[in-house]
Amino acid sequence: MAPPRRTSRDIRSESRLDVLHALLLAGEASRNDLARVTGLSTATVATVVSDLLEGGIVTEAGLTSGRVGRPTTTLRLNGDRGRIVGIDVAETYVRAVVFDAALDELASAEVDTDEHRDGSEDVIDAIVRALDTALASAGASRADVLGAGVSLPGGMQRWGEVAVVVPNTTWHHVDRLRERIGLPIVVDNPLKAIATAELWFGEGRRNASMITVNLGTGVGAGIVLEGRILRGATNFAGEWGHSLLALDGRECRCGRRGCVEAYVGAAGIQRTLAGIAPEHPLASAHLQREFIGSLAAALAPPEPDPAVAETLARTADYLGSAVADLVAIVNPEMIALTGWTAWALGDHLVPAVRRRVRREAPGDSAADLTIAVSTVRGNSAATGIATIALERFLGDVGLVTTRVPTAL
Amino acid sequence: MAPPRRTSRDIRSESRLDVLHALLLAGEASRNDLARVTGLSTATVATVVSDLLEGGIVTEAGLTSGRVGRPTTTLRLNGDRGRIVGIDVAETYVRAVVFDAALDELASAEVDTDEHRDGSEDVIDAIVRALDTALASAGASRADVLGAGVSLPGGMQRWGEVAVVVPNTTWHHVDRLRERIGLPIVVDNPLKAIATAELWFGEGRRNASMITVNLGTGVGAGIVLEGRILRGATNFAGEWGHSLLALDGRECRCGRRGCVEAYVGAAGIQRTLAGIAPEHPLASAHLQREFIGSLAAALAPPEPDPAVAETLARTADYLGSAVADLVAIVNPEMIALTGWTAWALGDHLVPAVRRRVRREAPGDSAADLTIAVSTVRGNSAATGIATIALERFLGDVGLVTTRVPTAL
Repeated sequence: MAPPRRTSRDIRSESRLDVLHALLLAGEASRNDLARVTGLSTATVATVVSDLLEGGIVTEAGLTSGRVGRPTTTLRLNGDRGRIVGIDVAETYVRAVVFDAALDELASAEVDTDEHRDGSEDVIDAIVRALDTALASAGASRADVLGAGVSLPGGMQRWGEVAVVVPNTTWHHVDRLRERIGLPIVVDNPLKAIATAELWFGEGRRNASMITVNLGTGVGAGIVLEGRILRGATNFAGEWGHSLLALDGRECRCGRRGCVEAYVGAAGIQRTLAGIAPEHPLASAHLQREFIGSLAAALAPPEPDPAVAETLARTADYLGSAVADLVAIVNPEMIALTGWTAWALGDHLVPAVRRRVRREAPGDSAADLTIAVSTVRGNSAATGIATIALERFLGDVGLVTTRVPTAL
Repeated sequence: MAPPRRTSRDIRSESRLDVLHALLLAGEASRNDLARVTGLSTATVATVVSDLLEGGIVTEAGLTSGRVGRPTTTLRLNGDRGRIVGIDVAETYVRAVVFDAALDELASAEVDTDEHRDGSEDVIDAIVRALDTALASAGASRADVLGAGVSLPGGMQRWGEVAVVVPNTTWHHVDRLRERIGLPIVVDNPLKAIATAELWFGEGRRNASMITVNLGTGVGAGIVLEGRILRGATNFAGEWGHSLLALDGRECRCGRRGCVEAYVGAAGIQRTLAGIAPEHPLASAHLQREFIGSLAAALAPPEPDPAVAETLARTADYLGSAVADLVAIVNPEMIALTGWTAWALGDHLVPAVRRRVRREAPGDSAADLTIAVSTVRGNSAATGIATIALERFLGDVGLVTTRVPTAL
């Protein structure tokens, strides 16, 4: 595949995305505000806004009067243009979130799934149930939906097929999913969805290069370079959780030994605790999210649990070493930690991770690197996949030249 | 740093680079040939060629008569436009190569350096001596030089300063180097130079993503995405040689433990042999390049040396695991092995590396991956840094919008 050629159409598309992004963050803004924030000329902003008004994507919000001169028309995204749905398919649940076209959340629904019944029809049933419940709760019907995004853990095998990487099964049923959902859908993997959320709602567009490091049951990286997500040849880029931390080390559920995930995934952290204190009650905690939450509680003053403190110290070292590898290979400006392990343990982990990365990353590659817990909260996989679905819709109506390669 | 904004100027620049690249590979071509090869319209090619003729970068080579119609004018790069110098600063030598402006090699000179005298004045002395000798040998003077590139192992610390990563010292003397050379210079690290050589003379422009894996004393990766080299925030991207293969593993000369380089760098391979057969005569070979060459010889029929065969098998496993990590993180279309270890041992290593990568890379990420020894030979660091210097010159005369960030 030859590199895509840039065209002046791409430039128009990027200007439109810049304006949409500025409106998304600001809520309401005048044309002059948009020119200032985006760095585009006022003439370009005027053209872009006119196109977006015509497409019904943007609407006039009202008039503001400054201290001098004529009142100014402000603009906002037109939430009423339709509905966008983001569906996060995780190992133990499926969550559907309904957004308006300004990406404000309207309603959501979660369906628990049985991790032992992971046949594709079971998963598709759960997706459809979550979707219908969420739409009903938002007072919307399928006819209102401009696009639906489905975040599925997996890479792409020859665009359009989905091969699930983790757990070690394959999921080739995208056509069936489309048929059952009956809506324009995009499928992508959660690492790309989460990075998209960071790109639109977090730090992504302010940095030339940024990596979201997602910490939960699975572990992975969303790599953003110059405002775009690195997908790689077959959408597997960012599977850093299955790169080596330790040759011939702990067995990973992917089948390889010594993967990063086997040390800093929730089950890996529990294994570290079990190695330090085999009889510790948390070492046999049944549910991963509860286990991670209990670790944070066990560190609270006045008597932080020493085995838990040691577990966190080792986890920070493992994570710091693995992040240093990402820095050695990609050398980003920023690393944003995301996912429920990051929300629960970030404050305990980040300072030690920073120290370890500074020590282990080559030369001065980490000298100016920012490492912080992401400011994007909520279900960032659902938000991100909905954003991809919106981008895809904007592509379908000819407003942006999308390079979303996973669209179906 | 915000992502760079694309302009229509960038598009013109890319069209010009596409035409220059096509001429570089073809030697001579008509405007119609160029349109066919680049995929540009004939009108665009006509405009681009006219700009390049005016700038003296391209010249009319002659007339060819086809079987029908008028004879066609063919074009070639104008080698006489001036001279470009590429200087490869390695640990034990400095090599200067003089090219004409069509990047045909005219002459070269090598100065041995004492690896124990690595003060900056010593290195600068060697650079200046190699440069002057090579220019004299090419019958050229400094006034003929359009640009000189210097490949120095190191990352950048706040653009314009150079911090050497390996060995573990810092080299902050770019101003002094520029003063002594007295020419327009660019400085970049060898990983970027080698990737540039692959991009212009090898497989780089035919793949949307490609990684050059350089194997010699040092080990590193040049990552090319959509025809551009990934530099990272401070030009450290690609320092995969100093990412982990084995937590708490072998000591690396960079100070970290368990780096990839400590296993697949020339000294690492020797260490593997010493572990297998401590008394083996090659285990104490003094010079790394001779050691690597002897390994290839020891594998020749009829009686391949079993300790050497075992060393190569383990090296292939180490390299395959480390390449699988690159695939997990970047997911490229192609991996090209370069450097003198790759030239000497590539045939022995590649089949086993391919098998290991297929087994260890996540999901199907390596299913369609090409792994091969690079077809670019000669001193690819010198060729690549000369190409960067030429690109910088084209930028200075306004023909391309270069993003070479290491220019001084």
